[in-house]
Amino acid sequence: MNWQYDKPEDIEKRSFEIIRRELAPDMPKLDPILEAVLIRVIHATADFSFVQNLCASEGAALLAIQALREGTSIVTDTRMAQAGIDKVRLGKFGAEVYCFMADSDVAESAKKNGTTRALAAMDKAAALGKPLIFAIGNAPTALGRLFDLHSRGLLMAPLIIGVPVGFVNVMESKEKLMAGTAPYITVRGRKGGSPVAAAICNALLRMAEEAL
Amino acid sequence: MNWQYDKPEDIEKRSFEIIRRELAPDMPKLDPILEAVLIRVIHATADFSFVQNLCASEGAALLAIQALREGTSIVTDTRMAQAGIDKVRLGKFGAEVYCFMADSDVAESAKKNGTTRALAAMDKAAALGKPLIFAIGNAPTALGRLFDLHSRGLLMAPLIIGVPVGFVNVMESKEKLMAGTAPYITVRGRKGGSPVAAAICNALLRMAEEAL
Repeated sequence: MNWQYDKPEDIEKRSFEIIRRELAPDMPKLDPILEAVLIRVIHATADFSFVQNLCASEGAALLAIQALREGTSIVTDTRMAQAGIDKVRLGKFGAEVYCFMADSDVAESAKKNGTTRALAAMDKAAALGKPLIFAIGNAPTALGRLFDLHSRGLLMAPLIIGVPVGFVNVMESKEKLMAGTAPYITVRGRKGGSPVAAAICNALLRMAEEAL
Repeated sequence: MNWQYDKPEDIEKRSFEIIRRELAPDMPKLDPILEAVLIRVIHATADFSFVQNLCASEGAALLAIQALREGTSIVTDTRMAQAGIDKVRLGKFGAEVYCFMADSDVAESAKKNGTTRALAAMDKAAALGKPLIFAIGNAPTALGRLFDLHSRGLLMAPLIIGVPVGFVNVMESKEKLMAGTAPYITVRGRKGGSPVAAAICNALLRMAEEAL
């Protein structure tokens, strides 16, 4: 037997021990929920720089856990994040993950209004008329639209996870989110992406399950 | 109009300009194909540390482009990478992306043999009996199995993209890959993941298309 036969659950446990040990000297004072989120983000990326950049509005993570326990579904702007979010755990609460990016009505609406499909996908989500947790891993335009909809009282969002990755408009969109009043979790700077969005959702889902 | 109405193709162009400008002082001497791969990896992650760690066996990227043009399909170990790989471009060559992780026969075989599902999924891919490009973004056990199959002459792989991410067995699996004789692209160290695997595939796919 060699390492190729290690069990996935053992590997995860050892990974978390390594992350906690290496993080210890730099660990900021975080509330325990956000600490669990941070560790899962580092687990997904092997990137310790998130310790400096992960931040959230007051009480946002706890609010999200409550919302998940009440069966709130998740909307994301990428198929990759949709693939990465733990649908088995989410299903236990009767919830699901939506990604409207490839929908034909979204493509039509984007074309008609001269917007990105990501923006039109957020409009479609808001029009569902129910509370949703948003997990944005790619499109600054999606995040900007959520900010606008929320400012105008047109969005029910117990949490906006705003972690687009990239070089253009990304930081602007995150600053907008942080300046607003919607509950958020974000990562300052250029980094983020689908695995970060999925890792944040999955960390919250595990805590929602433990709280049962 | 504001940045929320920028077009995705303009954003991508500006992003690439920023990456090239910021990379310029540190840019190593890379062959042009690998440089294009590196830039797309940085685009997907906003992480410039890949400039020090991306590496490939001699001629591997060119070989992969030729294989893609000949209609070689891609196998990956994660649904996230499968979601992120450009299936429209791949389809133009008559190829597709396989991910066998959730297949019931893979689960059964893993259980019977006491292996991970990732390892069993590689056995299933190898048994297809045709050349495949492997894009491993998560499981060191998958990468280890590919190495073993290749060493025993049981694998047709014009390219192994070996970029698992994480803290346990990840570096061991990459070192094994780099010490072997299969054509590879990898990232030294702990980083990698599904977006990196998908970005490498997508960079190669674009070049395969341009070469037409």
